[in-house]
Amino acid sequence: MARNASLSGFPEWLPQERLVELHVLDSLRRTFELHGFSSIETRAVETVGQLLRKGEIDKEVYALSRLQEEESGAKADAAQLALHFDLTVPFARYVVENAGYLAFPFRRYQIQKVWRGERPQDGRAREFTQADIDVVADGELPFRYDVELALVIVEALSALPIPPFKLRVNNRRLAEGFYRGIGLEDTAGVLRSIDKLDKIGAPAVADLLKAELGATDSQAGAALALASIRTEDTSFVAQVRALGVSNDLLEQGLSELGQVVAAAAVRAPGSVVADLSIARGLDYYTGTVYETVLVGHENLGSICSGGRYESLAAKGNRSFPGVGLSIGVTRLVSRIIGQQLAVASRSVPTVVLVALANDDSWPEAQDVAAALRSRGIAAEVAAKAEKFGKQIKYADRRGIPFVWFTAEDGGHQVKDIRSGGQTTADPASWAPPAEDLQPMIVVAPPAL
Amino acid sequence: MARNASLSGFPEWLPQERLVELHVLDSLRRTFELHGFSSIETRAVETVGQLLRKGEIDKEVYALSRLQEEESGAKADAAQLALHFDLTVPFARYVVENAGYLAFPFRRYQIQKVWRGERPQDGRAREFTQADIDVVADGELPFRYDVELALVIVEALSALPIPPFKLRVNNRRLAEGFYRGIGLEDTAGVLRSIDKLDKIGAPAVADLLKAELGATDSQAGAALALASIRTEDTSFVAQVRALGVSNDLLEQGLSELGQVVAAAAVRAPGSVVADLSIARGLDYYTGTVYETVLVGHENLGSICSGGRYESLAAKGNRSFPGVGLSIGVTRLVSRIIGQQLAVASRSVPTVVLVALANDDSWPEAQDVAAALRSRGIAAEVAAKAEKFGKQIKYADRRGIPFVWFTAEDGGHQVKDIRSGGQTTADPASWAPPAEDLQPMIVVAPPAL
Repeated sequence: MARNASLSGFPEWLPQERLVELHVLDSLRRTFELHGFSSIETRAVETVGQLLRKGEIDKEVYALSRLQEEESGAKADAAQLALHFDLTVPFARYVVENAGYLAFPFRRYQIQKVWRGERPQDGRAREFTQADIDVVADGELPFRYDVELALVIVEALSALPIPPFKLRVNNRRLAEGFYRGIGLEDTAGVLRSIDKLDKIGAPAVADLLKAELGATDSQAGAALALASIRTEDTSFVAQVRALGVSNDLLEQGLSELGQVVAAAAVRAPGSVVADLSIARGLDYYTGTVYETVLVGHENLGSICSGGRYESLAAKGNRSFPGVGLSIGVTRLVSRIIGQQLAVASRSVPTVVLVALANDDSWPEAQDVAAALRSRGIAAEVAAKAEKFGKQIKYADRRGIPFVWFTAEDGGHQVKDIRSGGQTTADPASWAPPAEDLQPMIVVAPPAL
Repeated sequence: MARNASLSGFPEWLPQERLVELHVLDSLRRTFELHGFSSIETRAVETVGQLLRKGEIDKEVYALSRLQEEESGAKADAAQLALHFDLTVPFARYVVENAGYLAFPFRRYQIQKVWRGERPQDGRAREFTQADIDVVADGELPFRYDVELALVIVEALSALPIPPFKLRVNNRRLAEGFYRGIGLEDTAGVLRSIDKLDKIGAPAVADLLKAELGATDSQAGAALALASIRTEDTSFVAQVRALGVSNDLLEQGLSELGQVVAAAAVRAPGSVVADLSIARGLDYYTGTVYETVLVGHENLGSICSGGRYESLAAKGNRSFPGVGLSIGVTRLVSRIIGQQLAVASRSVPTVVLVALANDDSWPEAQDVAAALRSRGIAAEVAAKAEKFGKQIKYADRRGIPFVWFTAEDGGHQVKDIRSGGQTTADPASWAPPAEDLQPMIVVAPPAL
């Protein structure tokens, strides 16, 4: 079980837990790079003006001031610096600033910490790591990328030591076209109400639609009927059509969502579902929207969300449309560690502790360790020539599986301190079993 | 040449530059893990009380406040949060908090960003990445670790695409013992003056010693004579002895520094130098001190510094001595990029662009890409079935070396767009030349 963080909302991991996080980060990086995404990082700070550009006020922003200047009475202004609360706003700025140096469509991944001064709770930290992928174009971005990114994310998540998940996909055009088709013009208002379905339930949402947006019983009923549709294949299209609404935007949305779900049904069966209740609240998506839940861990909230922006960024009369998703790495890792869904096989990278027969043998022990390292075997040398029993105990305490002994006559022996088995060995050729070469991440069997 | 950051002191890299940084980070991680160091990260924030615990006031600290609470008049106090300015203070806190869960001596590496609100200049950023290694014990830490850490750092730096470097080592005990031996009791004061040697020169330092510390001509001369000693072997011991000063602490320092230099002369010849002028200013070291310069880039300042702490941290009557070094990754990477000491062979991870013969062939193209990826070959699929010339141009613009074509009859061809050479290929077995599998970091020949 993970310890409690000493500062609420700022989780820290023990070395063995950190190995789980590193495994997740390495795995994500590998999948993203295999799909041609380039790594970038942006600075941790943006100007307050940049962060609030889209009128975001639901995110609690941490502003910066220099401690030694604080008493001189610096005031919050648009040029003040603050920590970024996501990786999308900084990426949009980066794209605009570097447009002349990037080849579009530009595919990037970005794995960094972000900060939000919110009240910490399960699955919600104040400092957390996100792993984002986006494709952004200069001018026009083919819809096919909406399909591709869903498939990349499914592949990335499938490689992690996590329970099965469902990537839920919807389309803003579909929803907005439908609402217009039934005569509800404040489509953003409807989306905001539908977004509350999980929290307050269908009857309360119907009341909201009627009270706040002037919807009739039948309009509210139709909006809720749409939101109840969930299919893992393209049969949602027929279900929507059965509601008898006709609208061009709706047709475009049906076609787009159909392409995502059809490709996923073939290439990643069981992972993607068309879920017409997905609204993604205040985010500024214009077409496809994605969110993801871990099966059996729905209370965790979405572990990966995103969508299509008509205009991720703009520069003069150039517009940069994009589509992307963001994985909540800390949310995932906190759950993996907290419920021991996966654990590292040991806490140190070290495979071999080279013991000291006497204090003068340190240089020879370093030679042995260097020979092992040159072949990729992590090794450390004992610092003191204590009794062998003590040196073995040290290895045991640190979780190092093997201890190496060099006799006076130059002969070498290596002991597996778990089994007690000991064999002669040559520093130039000995290798541990493959599963001991590096700490392994072992997925725990599901609890009964 | 790198672009200028849009916010002074907060460098950001283009994708091709970022590959150089990633290479440096991966290389450091690999060396550290081969030597048995465990990865940890600490939160970006500490309380102001924690950061200023050691009375540090030379570092400009960025304090945090929640933007929405700013107007309510929050005041700076010890519990206020601020961004860490190094990785040593957070590590000390982490060790104390988690002492019950760590196996000592605890070896950790930590690679993270830190922030200092200083005036940006060449080699000095406001946001930068440090890579630290430390060994910390519960109670007593054998001196041998001071030797080992010098060797680990030399190995880590030697694996980077950087010019030759010199790790300069000194010992506080040696210096303090010597000053006491010549009758200068304010050893911290002498160190502070000696630390200015590089900046103001020997005559001005002599004046300082006399004016501020009441040193005689002969005392000032002896202190400067000590600081002028620099040897790559243990001959510094004889040079110090020739100054005719006798003191127990001095003897201990001579012995310790001798051990570091003797081991380095054997295991890393030419990389380590005993430099008796190294003072490390206000830092709280108690024995060995290290700093490192790139040969020919001395103006950059130290790229890797550290030393031995008698007490890195304390908890009740437990004391945790440590020894460690910190590599200035951003300082190094800025120089590599700025002077093109090394460059990435391309800007994208992608090896192969799978072209589309027509719009319906996207699924088959995805199959080809998946087959390549399953064997570790990064591939992306064209989003539109444009003319082949246009698809090749797209690959060329993005720096992708190979384009894959699938004919109507199912036959496959792959084209190296640099040479124009084209061959038949099987998605299940084709592989690029090893040097094209991933972007390579190519070290530029030194300028004439």
